[in-house]
Amino acid sequence: MQNKIVTISRQFGSGGRAIGKRLAETLEVPCYDVELIDKIAQESGFAKEYLKESGEYRPYSNWFFNAFTTGQNGSHMTNQDYIWNIQKKNILELAEREPCVIVGRCADYILRDAAFADCLKVFIHASLAYRAQRIVQVYGEQEVTPEKRLKDKDKRRSAYYQYYTDMKFGDCRNYHLALDSSAFGLDKCVELIAAVY
Amino acid sequence: MQNKIVTISRQFGSGGRAIGKRLAETLEVPCYDVELIDKIAQESGFAKEYLKESGEYRPYSNWFFNAFTTGQNGSHMTNQDYIWNIQKKNILELAEREPCVIVGRCADYILRDAAFADCLKVFIHASLAYRAQRIVQVYGEQEVTPEKRLKDKDKRRSAYYQYYTDMKFGDCRNYHLALDSSAFGLDKCVELIAAVY
Repeated sequence: MQNKIVTISRQFGSGGRAIGKRLAETLEVPCYDVELIDKIAQESGFAKEYLKESGEYRPYSNWFFNAFTTGQNGSHMTNQDYIWNIQKKNILELAEREPCVIVGRCADYILRDAAFADCLKVFIHASLAYRAQRIVQVYGEQEVTPEKRLKDKDKRRSAYYQYYTDMKFGDCRNYHLALDSSAFGLDKCVELIAAVY
Repeated sequence: MQNKIVTISRQFGSGGRAIGKRLAETLEVPCYDVELIDKIAQESGFAKEYLKESGEYRPYSNWFFNAFTTGQNGSHMTNQDYIWNIQKKNILELAEREPCVIVGRCADYILRDAAFADCLKVFIHASLAYRAQRIVQVYGEQEVTPEKRLKDKDKRRSAYYQYYTDMKFGDCRNYHLALDSSAFGLDKCVELIAAVY
């Protein structure tokens, strides 16, 4: 039997991560987000803080990401591709092991094959105003405005997604269910996803 | 008080029209789809069959659509822009008059202003296989394959939408709720939309 998986892709600041956590509690399955980064850190040798950024965003500067790493089989690849491969392997292993919720990291694309047909793909987005307020609440103030932080994150997350998946980030057709968390609130989103799980 | 409106944008063959109809029955409000075309036909003098196509699709050939029409105020404009203006006016009038469901015709974009803040924007899409089977069931066989018919319709509907709205057709961020009808079935979609109305 295939495991029932939920992947949650989300805009930065939309509350997608919080929705994933609450959904997993409701469904009584594990939620992989920070835990996934721990696993990738262990396997790759890279720092967690670095992986949080490099597994979902195109870099500001290419020099480090394009530096070469030697893979386990002795092959050479860029840091970014090396991390992508470990990320992919870990997501496939998790999905094969147990029903779970996986937040971000292109899991929707990685689990696109028929072997994971029982995978519910969700996208969470929200208005700019809602996200701007939320990132200040959750991550605090910074020197740059929240709007500028969002614009930067959106741009680099879209670019990363498009680079590895060859699909448009945020296109409805890549997801079974897409929800505006600023219209419905986080709890209603959890309820709607659980209703189609 | 603002009227509660639901706009349903949809991929051709996804069952969006049927969902709109059933939703309107559930909510006990009118559904504007064919009725809207009747109104536009009356006002514009164009035939209904012609309007079905020209109010949502970029034309195969530009010669007729780019022909000039003289508007009520004596101004000259292309047939396509003339129809767009009448369509827009009618959608605004309906939304001001009563709570209702409006299917297609860029209503999500036309009702984007704060005056219609109580408007729930829905997008319905479905897998190619599901849509191919559905259009044969609903509209019958044709000489060209269903896949080719879908590809043509998708392309021309996207182009029309982008031309008048300057937004990407099918981008999650334009809708509060986007649903894959091939994953959930039409009735479940109606239920989910009604749950957030």
